[in-house]
Amino acid sequence: MGASPSLRFLLLWIAIAAAADELYCDSWRLSVETNNAGSWRTVPPPCRGFVEEYMSGERYASDSNVVALESLAFAKSVQITDDGKDAWIFDVDETLLSNIPYYASTGYGSKLFNVTSFNEWVNLASAPALPASLRLYEDLLILGFQMILLTGRTESQRKITEDNLLLTGYGYWKRLILREALDLGKPAVKFKSERRAELEGEGLRIHGNSGDQWSDLLGSTMARRSFKLPNPMYYIG
Amino acid sequence: MGASPSLRFLLLWIAIAAAADELYCDSWRLSVETNNAGSWRTVPPPCRGFVEEYMSGERYASDSNVVALESLAFAKSVQITDDGKDAWIFDVDETLLSNIPYYASTGYGSKLFNVTSFNEWVNLASAPALPASLRLYEDLLILGFQMILLTGRTESQRKITEDNLLLTGYGYWKRLILREALDLGKPAVKFKSERRAELEGEGLRIHGNSGDQWSDLLGSTMARRSFKLPNPMYYIG
Repeated sequence: MGASPSLRFLLLWIAIAAAADELYCDSWRLSVETNNAGSWRTVPPPCRGFVEEYMSGERYASDSNVVALESLAFAKSVQITDDGKDAWIFDVDETLLSNIPYYASTGYGSKLFNVTSFNEWVNLASAPALPASLRLYEDLLILGFQMILLTGRTESQRKITEDNLLLTGYGYWKRLILREALDLGKPAVKFKSERRAELEGEGLRIHGNSGDQWSDLLGSTMARRSFKLPNPMYYIG
Repeated sequence: MGASPSLRFLLLWIAIAAAADELYCDSWRLSVETNNAGSWRTVPPPCRGFVEEYMSGERYASDSNVVALESLAFAKSVQITDDGKDAWIFDVDETLLSNIPYYASTGYGSKLFNVTSFNEWVNLASAPALPASLRLYEDLLILGFQMILLTGRTESQRKITEDNLLLTGYGYWKRLILREALDLGKPAVKFKSERRAELEGEGLRIHGNSGDQWSDLLGSTMARRSFKLPNPMYYIG
């Protein structure tokens, strides 16, 4: 290399710093996925590039695929009865649908969440399916599960959400549950726990629950098995 | 490179296969850490080298450090009263103490668990401290938490466990709870939930809970915040 000694030193220093960031950011991501991080608002500044590379490269796809495979392995072990009460719950955003096009244009979670621009994006109904989830969804339908979609989106977004789901290949859900007026101030974990309790009250057996946030999965009336999809871009409590 | 075309092709093929294994194994590890994998008995054969490298390299240390930092950040937010009822629960194996020397000599989780040889190792009382946990433990003591050690080890291992903990720098715990005769057949999640309920019955406030297994953390009477330490070597249900 023809670089001067000082330039070579600078390049080496940059490489070492990048490796340190990579190591830290991978540990930060694990702490998010295991719910150790608790509440957080934006991706840490040193990890912006890391999250972009994770989401747009092959790791996010691979991680999502393995979640779907583990989910399917469990689903196949469930004894389905023909009373139509064997249910699987799916969250929508970053679970069935992917908002990567929106987050790619806004820095992959490195900026504070902007509800106005996010709702404009939702209203386009152009979020793609998360490929691994779409395959899983189809397999679960074939196995005989009743699909319950339980999302933090609001009733006012029902039509656009249905359109987006149908356009991307989803269908045949038993119920799409959105936040009603009374739910608007509730933490997600409370809203979703209440709705799961109602579903169980109706006699449904909630075998599996798939979501990218721990607030989709924890709380009361938990599913027999919960499946955490990856999402290092944002946190919902 | 002076290698023949067929050797070059073979080396390329090996490199591609190794990259594919690395991608898959990293996703498998995430599925273990998020509890998506459910019950498993040995590390998948393609991931043996991956787990060895993870455990013996800098990633395990970095992941453990970040868990300790997140734990400490939460601990500092807790309002400690002087009634001596503010508690933090720690598991022992792969949480306070590290059995890496044992697992290094038995393939890092690639072989079925051997209770005889593991107990021989435990009886040596020579497990090192997990460095990040020892620092956290000391910080929590200074903050004023009561330390409760809750482990799946048995009462017959009390003396050797105390010796090992004291030798590696731990001390001043309020209680070391081990499995009694009646607990021997219980799943860990049941045993630990029962003991947490007893602790709460005694008026303790369980703020934090640190463990490398989800069965340390989930169940009933959960801590306000749970902290999952990494462990891709074995699963306890």
